[in-house]
Amino acid sequence: MAGNGRRKLVFDFHEGNRDMKDLLGGKGANLAEMTNIGLPVPPGFTTTTEACLSYLDRGTFPEGLMDEVDEHLERLEGTMGKKLGDDADPLLVSVRSGAKFSMPGMMDTVLNLGLNDKSVQGLAKQSSDERFAWDSYRRFVQMFGKIVLDIPGDRFEEALDRAKAKKGEAAKDTDLTAEDLRELTDEFKEIVRKETGEDFPHQPRQQLEKAIEAVFRSWNGARAVAYRRQNKISDALGTAVNVVAMVFGNMGEDSGTGVAFTRNPATGEKEPYGDYLPNAQGEDVVAGIRNTLKLTELAEIDPKSWEELRRGMDILEKHYRDMCDIEFTIERGKLWFLQTRVGKRTALAEWVMAHDMWQEGLIGREEGLLRLDPNRLEQLFKPVIEAGHKQKEKPATKGLNASPGAAVGRVVFTADGAEEWAERGEKVILVRRETTPDDYHGMIRSQGILTSAGGTNSHAAVVARGEGIPAVCGADQIRIQRAAKAFTVDGSNVQEGDWVTIDGTDGTVYLKQLDLEDPPLARAVAGDEAARREKIWKAFRAFMELADQKRRLRVRANADTPDQASNARARGAEGIGLCRTEHMFLGEERVAAVREMIFADTPEEEEAALASLLPLQRGDFVGIFEAMDGLPVTVRLLDPPLHEFLPNHVDLAVAVAVAEERHESEVVVRDEKIPLEEARDVLRKVEELHEANPMLGLRGVRLGIVKPGLYAMQVRAIVEAACDRVEAGGHPEVEIMIPLVATQEELRQMREELEPAAREVLVRRRVELPLHWGTMIELPRASVVAGEIAEVADFFSFGTNDLTQTAWGFSRDDIGKFLGMYEERKLVRANPFVTIDRPGVGRLMEMAVGAGKAVNPALHIGICGEHGGDPDSVVFCHEILLDYVSCSPYRIETARLAAGQAALGAAEAASK
Amino acid sequence: MAGNGRRKLVFDFHEGNRDMKDLLGGKGANLAEMTNIGLPVPPGFTTTTEACLSYLDRGTFPEGLMDEVDEHLERLEGTMGKKLGDDADPLLVSVRSGAKFSMPGMMDTVLNLGLNDKSVQGLAKQSSDERFAWDSYRRFVQMFGKIVLDIPGDRFEEALDRAKAKKGEAAKDTDLTAEDLRELTDEFKEIVRKETGEDFPHQPRQQLEKAIEAVFRSWNGARAVAYRRQNKISDALGTAVNVVAMVFGNMGEDSGTGVAFTRNPATGEKEPYGDYLPNAQGEDVVAGIRNTLKLTELAEIDPKSWEELRRGMDILEKHYRDMCDIEFTIERGKLWFLQTRVGKRTALAEWVMAHDMWQEGLIGREEGLLRLDPNRLEQLFKPVIEAGHKQKEKPATKGLNASPGAAVGRVVFTADGAEEWAERGEKVILVRRETTPDDYHGMIRSQGILTSAGGTNSHAAVVARGEGIPAVCGADQIRIQRAAKAFTVDGSNVQEGDWVTIDGTDGTVYLKQLDLEDPPLARAVAGDEAARREKIWKAFRAFMELADQKRRLRVRANADTPDQASNARARGAEGIGLCRTEHMFLGEERVAAVREMIFADTPEEEEAALASLLPLQRGDFVGIFEAMDGLPVTVRLLDPPLHEFLPNHVDLAVAVAVAEERHESEVVVRDEKIPLEEARDVLRKVEELHEANPMLGLRGVRLGIVKPGLYAMQVRAIVEAACDRVEAGGHPEVEIMIPLVATQEELRQMREELEPAAREVLVRRRVELPLHWGTMIELPRASVVAGEIAEVADFFSFGTNDLTQTAWGFSRDDIGKFLGMYEERKLVRANPFVTIDRPGVGRLMEMAVGAGKAVNPALHIGICGEHGGDPDSVVFCHEILLDYVSCSPYRIETARLAAGQAALGAAEAASK
Repeated sequence: MAGNGRRKLVFDFHEGNRDMKDLLGGKGANLAEMTNIGLPVPPGFTTTTEACLSYLDRGTFPEGLMDEVDEHLERLEGTMGKKLGDDADPLLVSVRSGAKFSMPGMMDTVLNLGLNDKSVQGLAKQSSDERFAWDSYRRFVQMFGKIVLDIPGDRFEEALDRAKAKKGEAAKDTDLTAEDLRELTDEFKEIVRKETGEDFPHQPRQQLEKAIEAVFRSWNGARAVAYRRQNKISDALGTAVNVVAMVFGNMGEDSGTGVAFTRNPATGEKEPYGDYLPNAQGEDVVAGIRNTLKLTELAEIDPKSWEELRRGMDILEKHYRDMCDIEFTIERGKLWFLQTRVGKRTALAEWVMAHDMWQEGLIGREEGLLRLDPNRLEQLFKPVIEAGHKQKEKPATKGLNASPGAAVGRVVFTADGAEEWAERGEKVILVRRETTPDDYHGMIRSQGILTSAGGTNSHAAVVARGEGIPAVCGADQIRIQRAAKAFTVDGSNVQEGDWVTIDGTDGTVYLKQLDLEDPPLARAVAGDEAARREKIWKAFRAFMELADQKRRLRVRANADTPDQASNARARGAEGIGLCRTEHMFLGEERVAAVREMIFADTPEEEEAALASLLPLQRGDFVGIFEAMDGLPVTVRLLDPPLHEFLPNHVDLAVAVAVAEERHESEVVVRDEKIPLEEARDVLRKVEELHEANPMLGLRGVRLGIVKPGLYAMQVRAIVEAACDRVEAGGHPEVEIMIPLVATQEELRQMREELEPAAREVLVRRRVELPLHWGTMIELPRASVVAGEIAEVADFFSFGTNDLTQTAWGFSRDDIGKFLGMYEERKLVRANPFVTIDRPGVGRLMEMAVGAGKAVNPALHIGICGEHGGDPDSVVFCHEILLDYVSCSPYRIETARLAAGQAALGAAEAASK
Repeated sequence: MAGNGRRKLVFDFHEGNRDMKDLLGGKGANLAEMTNIGLPVPPGFTTTTEACLSYLDRGTFPEGLMDEVDEHLERLEGTMGKKLGDDADPLLVSVRSGAKFSMPGMMDTVLNLGLNDKSVQGLAKQSSDERFAWDSYRRFVQMFGKIVLDIPGDRFEEALDRAKAKKGEAAKDTDLTAEDLRELTDEFKEIVRKETGEDFPHQPRQQLEKAIEAVFRSWNGARAVAYRRQNKISDALGTAVNVVAMVFGNMGEDSGTGVAFTRNPATGEKEPYGDYLPNAQGEDVVAGIRNTLKLTELAEIDPKSWEELRRGMDILEKHYRDMCDIEFTIERGKLWFLQTRVGKRTALAEWVMAHDMWQEGLIGREEGLLRLDPNRLEQLFKPVIEAGHKQKEKPATKGLNASPGAAVGRVVFTADGAEEWAERGEKVILVRRETTPDDYHGMIRSQGILTSAGGTNSHAAVVARGEGIPAVCGADQIRIQRAAKAFTVDGSNVQEGDWVTIDGTDGTVYLKQLDLEDPPLARAVAGDEAARREKIWKAFRAFMELADQKRRLRVRANADTPDQASNARARGAEGIGLCRTEHMFLGEERVAAVREMIFADTPEEEEAALASLLPLQRGDFVGIFEAMDGLPVTVRLLDPPLHEFLPNHVDLAVAVAVAEERHESEVVVRDEKIPLEEARDVLRKVEELHEANPMLGLRGVRLGIVKPGLYAMQVRAIVEAACDRVEAGGHPEVEIMIPLVATQEELRQMREELEPAAREVLVRRRVELPLHWGTMIELPRASVVAGEIAEVADFFSFGTNDLTQTAWGFSRDDIGKFLGMYEERKLVRANPFVTIDRPGVGRLMEMAVGAGKAVNPALHIGICGEHGGDPDSVVFCHEILLDYVSCSPYRIETARLAAGQAALGAAEAASK
């Protein structure tokens, strides 16, 4: 509180500390902290974010603000032994924005404040450098004019260019003499007079007041608002303003400015890292006028400052117990710390640093674990675009980052094409509007997948993540001309066979063949690289082991094939939470039988078609049970609508019409030739099965009810496979899951039909094996009546993809058209298909868990939607007491880490 | 309790009463009641439903059952002065099933029990009619053999046919002499021996025990189970068994049997009504051997019995305080009452009787109101198929009764066809697979609508109910050949122009031109008819007035045009709860502007297209506000996805491909010729806008966000129309509703955009008018987060169609394929699109009401889904404290009646 009972609005650096970021902003709080631990920080003070918010709210400074500023300014002048803008020996200050969270370059800063026509002379005298003084003044008028007085920056730039032009064709700033700069400053002041109708303010205190106001205003500037939207920073925070005594890095060769990291932010290695630019101010570094030196070169240029910097870096890292990112300036051999914060780092560096710091004793192992970002873990397993390329190349477009990792290959437009090219040994990127289950065979032969429609839960995205294939989806600036086998984007035309590179980690697309780097956690690398990799592996193992010790949630995989199951198990999966059987209906041989089943006119024909599918399915299950021996495997009976196994409606209708026009007896559908009569039959069936909204149609348990032989066949195949395994000495743990249940009766009647079929197999094979029967909870109604359903279920598995689709009324295939806008305009808190929407979908889940466990305390509950691999959602699943999460094999480690952190975080919170 | 602490299993008729239907079944309870009020009922006793259930559960009679039966039998023998199966003067009994609810003909009955080779002689002597005695015995062996001993009935029928054949070519039962019948009985007993390996049981008590057991078993007979499924009767009720002393209506011309209603069940008139068959038993009436007489003819045949019957009918009607349906037998001039129950009646008779009984003082006016079935009220306003035709004609197929009333017309297959034929003065029935908004112009020119796909909430059904057009939907046995302009069903081929009749009240379809009758509440009829109609109107007005006094719920209409609004107001609507604006985007002139908006490449083009729509929309609103002057009108901003305003994808793709093949420069799409280039553009747009699940796609508020000019235009049109009305002295009450909201932000941001647009109009027009802003609650997430949404809403309106679709994951357009099976197999309690699914959707509604009113007590809440006109759902809306229901204009009276009953019923329940 200020003396009169008001909230204190201005803090001297001595009065704050690093925990006051809310009030002083990140920069202010850290300047205070550095000051208090005795590092050389130019003195100064900070006006609070509250002052800013009050100003933005009411349009005027809060009462008493400038009184407090005056008090602190007086104290600053006392410390420095100079007066702001004094004619003979002026104190100059910088006025810098600083919000709670770093918003680099988004808000405004004014340097050299305090200069005017008189004090510039004093500065010249004190610095013995007239050119420096006039250059500082020129810069101040320009900056003040642009930022505080809202004069378009071009006006000053043009004048500067004219001044340089007078000196010769290729003249630089540095070619301007003191006199040139004096004239230029006069011209700048004239510009101010013209643009504002008033003289440039010479009174230093007036300059300061206006500069503070301008920084306050910059919080609501267009750039800052857009940045906050993008980075999910609240608009309600406001910015602090730091008024700091100026120090100059541009006072000669014994001066300079730089950025230092206490460890390497790219590799995590414990070594000083950064840049240094002699005889320069911070803005010169940004402007890129000269190339910077490596930070370590400072050791030779200025050993004393280097030692002091090293000491300060040590102090800061120990004090912050983390890698720090530091801005410093050397003014005539004197080192000043201008800013510090905990530094950003790559996913790789995050793991290496956490491990090293734990080993060094700087932090505890649990703290190390909690510092790891599970959202970035997957990156350690993925190839990345070579750093130089990534920095240099501008992407042609950007879509949704649907499946992480970089991929490079030649463009193909059909699944069949992908397969053919891959068989010829070509690397391909499959480019489509969207994919369907028909495309699966081509997708798995592609290096990467690029779609122009569909969201992060479209078919393409789900399959890509499941298979670990990089994918960029919903890149809606891409226009595909299917017939021409080409696409256009960003003014370029890309033909089949052209090279593209996609980065599924950030959604970027490049129309070039870029180099890729091995993943950080690649197993086989040679030479020096191998030692470095071993270190990463050590860090990885240490923290994963701890996460596994701590977590309560089991982690299972969504896996549909023996290969996926083995991969998942190697990654630590403790079972399969979702084995989708629809993929077992694909492949040439199978599709034929599936179509026979669909076209069956009599129960006998249907029975025969199903009988031919049974041994194929059984074989799939044997492999999966073997890979997961001793661990639970949840098999979901067929879920998608049957028309997914038939040709596309429009394609077929057009092909039939064209064949009829041409009086041809054969129809070509997707490179397959079939007789016209047959094509007409198929078309009739497609029309008969057509659904306006297949997502809400004849699928899941509804199929099981309408075609009872289908599920019975699947159950027989599952149980026969389990029997095979038992006879081979294995230990299959079988859970059979009925999808899309909305009522108790559906599950009850299905169990009544299917349990005898299962029992019959067990009796015939003389095998004793407990079977568990359960359901997906993936419809809002199922959540609401979960108590009723729990009476007849051994387990629940939340199908949060469909639950999100139905709760929100969002088709995941169609939201590409508006979800981007929804995120941008904050109409959704986050993409609900990525992170569980707690107040909506999450509430439905909580209701279901509560009602289900109340009725049936033995009920086992998990989640098998895509959210099972999302760290925030894993925390939620921990909180609502689920038993396990199940996710794609490539997210197993992510889920394990997040589950460990959730348990550890909850334990820490409880102990407080 | 029986003496030893067991539950009593057998009740004498003196021991029961009409309230004991659960235990004694309907027949047993009413026999007991009639006995107790002194009517002549043959003595007897009843075994309880509990005895039946115990038997069905354990496979044996409950302990002590036959002891109790023996006791009661002894008492019966005492009363009658005869012994069961006595050689000289046998007591004979009937053993009749009787469940709580009437299941006519579904379970078994054995007559004449007690006869054997000796007692038949006694019966012959006592009746002095040897032929009668042997015929009775013959019938008993046949019935017992078939029902109790499970011998196929054919065996006996064949023997009977052989016996008749011996007597001559066209011999009847009555041609058989006593001797013939004795021989036939011997043959029957021989059949029993052959089929069962045992002699026909001669011991009367053994006969009785086996007959009781057979009736118990018949509860689970296939017919009975199917009937209960169909009629939603619980399987857990069981049947009682009534053992009654036989009386014979076939003992000569002074004997007979009949059925009597205390009032006319067809018209409701207060007059004795029924049939009488002299010298016959009940089964002869059923067999239809002779034509029955009108009941009133009994007055001349047997004045004494007639008087006695009239007196009994009077007693029963006064006692039951309702119209009774009575079975009676006259044995040698002595009248016996064999059964009674409250009689079934037509919708018309229900109203007339309730009114008359109130006028007579038999019941109170409120009781009369509660007796009316609101589900059948709509029938009073609809033409029906002429009774004779309806009885005689067998329907060709049956679909869903989507919109009530009968319609007759000539088949057309396109909306344009319907319009053309109608303009030529033809009555047409529009037959389609399903309809789309494009078909609207043809639908409203049709007498009726028949679809082969789609459920009771498909587009066809919703529009038909809204327009009061009879419709049968989802008649899936109909196969339409669009190209051939024909359909096949039930082996017949129907061409365009052929006559059909549909009955939307029961879903039947006839391939003929049947006669229709005027609706009971038709206003203009001539002659005698007029007086009768006036009586119905009096009843109607009396009870509707009372319902309106009692109800708490307001009743509004879903109306989209001024005509609909006027119609709704005339029917008692107190406002419009849902004015859909999508219909305002149809019509040639408008569709062009709508397409321009969709194709707009620049904001200016979009703006121009919207500007041309504005005056048209404004005109629509002026008419609606005028029709509803002084009452609230809730206008919903555009909801459907934009591709609904473009041609069908498949049709267009085929048309373009065909034109390309033919090298034609024009494409024909739905009789419209457009240049090929343009068609290609449209096709590209259709592909761009294509959605996998349009129901869950870019529609509702999402459209409003993506195309902000669209909603702003609509709001301006609404507010300008309201200003026009105010200037004309009207009192518009405007509510603006945003559809498909899932988050608070959507509604908040929309209001922020639209309220200024509305204010701008009001300021410009200098009109003061309060506007109310609200949202549909039609997504499960909206229900769950209703508290958040209520912070920014003035009102909620439950869109229970979409809420049901999303909560269940049921597309109303696609469930036709399985909903029938779901209802049959009781996988759903009822069709959730007809009656609100209380435990699922209803629970979501309750949550929303609770959370919404907690946050915003002034929040006004209604419902505008189809359920708003469903009586059961109206009761639910009353219970969860909604403020109003809104339904199609043709359901207004239904909703008013149901709302009145709900309030009255709740008040009665509370006073108990």
